[in-house]
Amino acid sequence: MKTEPPTLCRPTVWLERDEVVMLDRRRFPEERTYVRLKSPEEVAKAIEDMVIQGAGSIGLAAGYGVLLAIKKAAEKSGEDLLRDVEAAGHRLIATRPTGRHIREIVEMLLGEVKRALEEGGDPFELASRALSAEEERMRRTAELCGKNAASLLEDGDTILVHCFPGCALIYMLLEAKKSGKEIRVFCTETRPYLQGARLTATTLMEMGIRPTLITDGMTAYCLWRGLIDKVFVAADRIALDGSIANKVGTYAIALAAFHSGVPFYVLGYEGPDPTTKRGIDIPIEERNPSELFSIGGVRIAPEGISGYYPAFDVTPPEFISAIITDKGIYPPRLIWRYLNDPRPQ
Amino acid sequence: MKTEPPTLCRPTVWLERDEVVMLDRRRFPEERTYVRLKSPEEVAKAIEDMVIQGAGSIGLAAGYGVLLAIKKAAEKSGEDLLRDVEAAGHRLIATRPTGRHIREIVEMLLGEVKRALEEGGDPFELASRALSAEEERMRRTAELCGKNAASLLEDGDTILVHCFPGCALIYMLLEAKKSGKEIRVFCTETRPYLQGARLTATTLMEMGIRPTLITDGMTAYCLWRGLIDKVFVAADRIALDGSIANKVGTYAIALAAFHSGVPFYVLGYEGPDPTTKRGIDIPIEERNPSELFSIGGVRIAPEGISGYYPAFDVTPPEFISAIITDKGIYPPRLIWRYLNDPRPQ
Repeated sequence: MKTEPPTLCRPTVWLERDEVVMLDRRRFPEERTYVRLKSPEEVAKAIEDMVIQGAGSIGLAAGYGVLLAIKKAAEKSGEDLLRDVEAAGHRLIATRPTGRHIREIVEMLLGEVKRALEEGGDPFELASRALSAEEERMRRTAELCGKNAASLLEDGDTILVHCFPGCALIYMLLEAKKSGKEIRVFCTETRPYLQGARLTATTLMEMGIRPTLITDGMTAYCLWRGLIDKVFVAADRIALDGSIANKVGTYAIALAAFHSGVPFYVLGYEGPDPTTKRGIDIPIEERNPSELFSIGGVRIAPEGISGYYPAFDVTPPEFISAIITDKGIYPPRLIWRYLNDPRPQ
Repeated sequence: MKTEPPTLCRPTVWLERDEVVMLDRRRFPEERTYVRLKSPEEVAKAIEDMVIQGAGSIGLAAGYGVLLAIKKAAEKSGEDLLRDVEAAGHRLIATRPTGRHIREIVEMLLGEVKRALEEGGDPFELASRALSAEEERMRRTAELCGKNAASLLEDGDTILVHCFPGCALIYMLLEAKKSGKEIRVFCTETRPYLQGARLTATTLMEMGIRPTLITDGMTAYCLWRGLIDKVFVAADRIALDGSIANKVGTYAIALAAFHSGVPFYVLGYEGPDPTTKRGIDIPIEERNPSELFSIGGVRIAPEGISGYYPAFDVTPPEFISAIITDKGIYPPRLIWRYLNDPRPQ
């Protein structure tokens, strides 16, 4: 296994002069194309169009969109600058409603701008420093979460992952490797955007792990057959009741794992969203169904057909074995305790 | 709604002089291409390569393969003819192991050939007549099954179907229409061969019904959201314990329906296979995983990846609300009663 971090665990979005640069995950891994976005509106459109993906990553992308807005308004009066940046922030928050990070990061940066204007600091510098700190905090969260998750793995385990669960998965597998545990990985292709077949599979290949690809409909059979020892997924948002919202298809896997007696673990990064009480309070994004009608430019459905495209689903706590965070491992119904627990150094 | 039968409920395989002609379902509906197969081996390869699909349809295709073998051996001695036809029959039986029809139809035709040789009849004529009778019996079975299933529908129902459940679905919807019931249909795309997006969706469009397409991973969410009133799937084989084998993905839908309190119905056509006691006795076909790595010629996974492709899964009786047959509607655990019940005229 290689030690260099895989592409998707290095920065894939940043600010370069007056542009936000972003790895185009829709073309990855066939091409490593970086799109250059010249305005907060272009950043918002790129987030909507799935150029970048994953609750944490789209949060960071929105953060860079806010930085760009501040930079563009740098010559304006404080009042005008704040108005421009708030407008950009609200536009970015509206891009994708299910994950919690966009709102949190945008609001944190708006707070920095207000503080700078009130206290006489440089808005760009303060916001920029805050976003860098947040990026490093998120990386460290993924690392701690992954290390905690590795304690659940045993040598010889075969795990199933759905969609691209982010870098906690990578840190988990690196930690397992350090402890001499051999882990095999099944990954779902994850329709319609194929994040599993493209992002997860490529990231694992970069690490020297050769995953086994299955379609989303094959998970229940693989669990029933006893091919899977543990399931790991991420969460775009965790509610205080222990429900999680994640990539559509997650709930069906949790049910199948439950009925096959296979543990179903959530890589929960920084725990629950303190403002979301219950799973049913999580807004589920519905995307344009035309995105279902073709794959890689190849039309797969007859003309005139209708479609429905919920991008996430909600798994209730009774089908989750544990939620793993940077602070430790929680039974899903006790995830609210996370909010009072200290983060390890 | 139109009254002419849709393409896939008219004959899609037949014998024409010395060739078996078969609609290529891999290209349907974009193209209506008919492949012409010159030997039983070519018929076997076409069945393996998914030119035709569906337990009943592949059974008929195998039957035409046997007829072709008889025709080709017509000039030979009785002993040589029987040897050729038996070899072709065994080759055809070996193509796809999960469904029950191929074996049943091939063995029935081999019986006709033996009877002709023993009693001095024309093997081709007897087998040909037997296959025609079987084809009409199967059509009638689908019609009776569909009519029985229609009794479960209520005006305004939205149903979910997985894969292409064959013509019982069509007869069910025609019967519902006759009774003035408006039915809406969600269909899964059904990876990897997309039978739902292509065959089911096209067949419904031909009938004047505009279905709503979802990916396989969205079924549990749609059931949880209350968008679906009833689920209908077919079965490639039904065991005497009430388990069913059907297109991979079926079991996960049954679990999700169970947990959302939505009835899960099986269009069971001619009931259980009397030779299969339990669900775990059904052989599950594993296909070449390379079929998972691209869609319509577009590569979707990194080079060097591994894959696993079970083509079917098994749903146990506790998650099935009822199995609907030509003879009536059975609780899954009582499906063995089918074998003693009379078929209506």
